[in-house]
Amino acid sequence: MQAALDAAGQGPRGANPLVGAAILAPDGTVLSVGYHRGAGTAHAEIDALAVLREKSGGSLPNLSACTMVVTLEPCSHHGRTGPCAAAIAEAGVGAIVYAAADPTAEAAGGARYLLDAGVAVRAGLLSGPALELNQRWFRAKAEDRPFTTLHIAQTLDGLIAAADGTSQWITGAAARQDSHGIRARVDAIVAGTGTVLADDPRLTARDADGRELERQPLRVVVGRREVPASAAVRGRDGKFLQLAGHDPAAVLGELAARGAGHVMIEGGATVAGAFLAADLVDELVLYLAPLMLGTGIRSTGDLGISTLADASRWRWDPVAPARTLGADLRLTLEPLPLARHNERP
Amino acid sequence: MQAALDAAGQGPRGANPLVGAAILAPDGTVLSVGYHRGAGTAHAEIDALAVLREKSGGSLPNLSACTMVVTLEPCSHHGRTGPCAAAIAEAGVGAIVYAAADPTAEAAGGARYLLDAGVAVRAGLLSGPALELNQRWFRAKAEDRPFTTLHIAQTLDGLIAAADGTSQWITGAAARQDSHGIRARVDAIVAGTGTVLADDPRLTARDADGRELERQPLRVVVGRREVPASAAVRGRDGKFLQLAGHDPAAVLGELAARGAGHVMIEGGATVAGAFLAADLVDELVLYLAPLMLGTGIRSTGDLGISTLADASRWRWDPVAPARTLGADLRLTLEPLPLARHNERP
Repeated sequence: MQAALDAAGQGPRGANPLVGAAILAPDGTVLSVGYHRGAGTAHAEIDALAVLREKSGGSLPNLSACTMVVTLEPCSHHGRTGPCAAAIAEAGVGAIVYAAADPTAEAAGGARYLLDAGVAVRAGLLSGPALELNQRWFRAKAEDRPFTTLHIAQTLDGLIAAADGTSQWITGAAARQDSHGIRARVDAIVAGTGTVLADDPRLTARDADGRELERQPLRVVVGRREVPASAAVRGRDGKFLQLAGHDPAAVLGELAARGAGHVMIEGGATVAGAFLAADLVDELVLYLAPLMLGTGIRSTGDLGISTLADASRWRWDPVAPARTLGADLRLTLEPLPLARHNERP
Repeated sequence: MQAALDAAGQGPRGANPLVGAAILAPDGTVLSVGYHRGAGTAHAEIDALAVLREKSGGSLPNLSACTMVVTLEPCSHHGRTGPCAAAIAEAGVGAIVYAAADPTAEAAGGARYLLDAGVAVRAGLLSGPALELNQRWFRAKAEDRPFTTLHIAQTLDGLIAAADGTSQWITGAAARQDSHGIRARVDAIVAGTGTVLADDPRLTARDADGRELERQPLRVVVGRREVPASAAVRGRDGKFLQLAGHDPAAVLGELAARGAGHVMIEGGATVAGAFLAADLVDELVLYLAPLMLGTGIRSTGDLGISTLADASRWRWDPVAPARTLGADLRLTLEPLPLARHNERP
């Protein structure tokens, strides 16, 4: 299960949970591992079977004495991919061990399906770490809303623009390319009218040469001020939406109704502050450029916090806490579960 | 030489340069490595000889066919430790290869001494990386002033205190203990009157249990406002000094005259900003706590920068760029050499 957990962490956070799977020989040897690479791609169990098929020269060996371990109960629904439970039974896997039950109504039932298909099933192994790995994803699911990623690119002293408003580019090419990779994975990207009027961003996902990628998020501008007809964010592909208010729950409800499973908050400080204050940020991706400005525009607005004891508390994402990207540092954090808020003095 | 450079990076930056040394057998095998652990401790060459002596059961083997490689020209002066050149000759080392010449008048002459003592000498191997490793130290020496470390403990959004002034403790115990380790190594610690009046800090170096360590820095308060007779910073050991102005060059000149080789800037934002604006920070140690406050007191004051192109540019210390300390992250940076300021767009 540890191998499956480690594999799970290789995938990106987003609309789907991080899931890993491993196929074990009767003596416990790991024959293959697989993981989920994000919404629309093969689930971890299918990935592990595909890896083993390739290793075995194109066809699967007899798996009746083998065990598949997976960090989350195999799904039983037809989403963008077929149900994993059926594929596992069809591959002839003898036994399955999963860590955590799938809490979502539409995907649950995989264990029942497997038992009925004659597969031995065991649940609960390392379920603590498996639940912890996706704690904010489970919470977003429970709240029936999209998973949100807040993106901030700032200086060491917490500024996103200089005093005269110049902000292009605080981070270098590698960090910017990394954030375009997030844009390409999300379903919608949210920016405030202030940012749109100040910077006229396109909010599209582009490659290193500036060409638009095939998959584009819905570009969402929140706020009452009018977005000019000439604004770059409008584009020509119809993937533009303006919402009059920026109440975070209302914005997410609107985007969920449009099918969004993963939303990226691009900024600026007012919108970022509103989502932070509402505890509706599931993942914080903070690009830290090795610069100091002293004065300028801050990355976050008022969070309604006046004393240190009430600070918004985070922890480094256990999967990908810090990584250098060119001259910059990418930090990834998630909100500290509320029960742990009081652990710090 | 690479082994010596790697060893050099294990020491702390401060009053002395980072130096590493390795002793090689005639066939090139590394017999021992040593490094300098900070002002007052054995130099790298002596450390490498001591390591070899211990490995060899208490006495040195015949070194006449061996080579010592060291990242900086061995010193020839009697500082707090004896001259390395004499110790190397006395140990019977056959040949010495060093990377960079010692630029300081008082320590130079080691190569000359060794040649006169019959030791084969070669200079310049990997001198680029060796000079780069200590570029800011060489600069401080050239400017005839102490090496400075700026210490900042801040939230993710660049704040050192909440709106109501609460700042104890933004970072956790491990990060605070790490910063007491720096206090214990420096000769003087500088804080502004604003910080002293707001927080009444002791500015002493203490262990994990809060007990004062044996070696204490001079506690220096800069600014014209009166420090109350009851202020904790005054202490009872006589190691207290107030300087009326906080012009950074004047402060460093005053402390250099008192024998300080390494000065730590404790803050607050006004003092930190003054040293940053004057380009008189050689090392930035930034403790980043996984907290957000939104509003509060910023870590740096006005640096006289109004547009992004003029930003103060840094790079991650190649020796120790990022390290977790409990829940916090310690980042270490040094100013980007001026010639490279234009490398970023």
